[in-house]
Amino acid sequence: MEALQQRIIREGRILPGNIVKVDGFLNHRVDAQFLGEIADEIARLFDVTHVTKILTAEASGIPLATVCAYKFGVPMVFAKKAKSDNIEGGLYKSEIFSYTYKKKVTLICAQDWLSSDDKVLIVDDFMAKGAAMRGLIDIVKMSGAELVGIACAIEKGFQHGGDQLREEGYPLKSLAIIDQADENGFVFRQE
Amino acid sequence: MEALQQRIIREGRILPGNIVKVDGFLNHRVDAQFLGEIADEIARLFDVTHVTKILTAEASGIPLATVCAYKFGVPMVFAKKAKSDNIEGGLYKSEIFSYTYKKKVTLICAQDWLSSDDKVLIVDDFMAKGAAMRGLIDIVKMSGAELVGIACAIEKGFQHGGDQLREEGYPLKSLAIIDQADENGFVFRQE
Repeated sequence: MEALQQRIIREGRILPGNIVKVDGFLNHRVDAQFLGEIADEIARLFDVTHVTKILTAEASGIPLATVCAYKFGVPMVFAKKAKSDNIEGGLYKSEIFSYTYKKKVTLICAQDWLSSDDKVLIVDDFMAKGAAMRGLIDIVKMSGAELVGIACAIEKGFQHGGDQLREEGYPLKSLAIIDQADENGFVFRQE
Repeated sequence: MEALQQRIIREGRILPGNIVKVDGFLNHRVDAQFLGEIADEIARLFDVTHVTKILTAEASGIPLATVCAYKFGVPMVFAKKAKSDNIEGGLYKSEIFSYTYKKKVTLICAQDWLSSDDKVLIVDDFMAKGAAMRGLIDIVKMSGAELVGIACAIEKGFQHGGDQLREEGYPLKSLAIIDQADENGFVFRQE
């Protein structure tokens, strides 16, 4: 998606350790109108007419998943990252290692909100090694729902989480794949 | 907001300890279209034409704040609840006690995304004792921005966090105030 690549070049920053920051429009300050454009692109890449639920993980996936749900006219479910008192039993749980927080995190989703009747589009803002994405895939499998597709806004191609998922046959499409992010700037994978 | 009260009566659940669960449409499974109706009601209650930013707290405030931002045509900023490696210095920080998680939590917001030029509408999904709301108000004060209003979807009136904020003069409006939630069901405050 050209507009997304341009936005990354214009506003993205590269921190030591090849950390890519896009928190000016994607995951801290959020440009909701631009997320609408990303959602439109997702609707071009996947057959969203059959989707019954958008699934994402808290917290930074929620804005894009919400705009997709709003535009596609389906509910959104977000997997939570810690057990709060407001979530009782009946949970799908998937333990992942969060590279952002450098610790194990359990993604949880109430069984009430995802079932074998669902056709699920996973939506997330960002993927590096793909740990959170695998947690979401696990949850879809546990629910017995059909996985229609996996849409990711920005993939760090040089960390290969996305490549591994594609090799395993998962229907993953990322709107911008960054193959290089260093002192020389961004290099995107050609489609 | 009549439609919200009806939805709470129809789908809300009351757990021991007067815990109100509305995770079927508001904060786990999210009905994005219904959030659009709530956003329209918020636009009737506040003069959103002058707002430059929507502010909320992760995670459950994000869906409603995103839909408000999308509809009102302004960016949304969400305060985060933990320091990750992707957030450097230059932060507004407000320590709050989370009753949901039964521990102290620090709300953080990058100074880059909120300044004294902003006119802020705080939006949150739920308020009990108002701890998170006070954290967001703190952040607005630290930034020097103007606080245009505070919109909350569901307020637990019997925990009085909202009443205290209103007594202190804050421009808080909640779309449904639950004054009683027990074995006899829900009782809403009349407007």
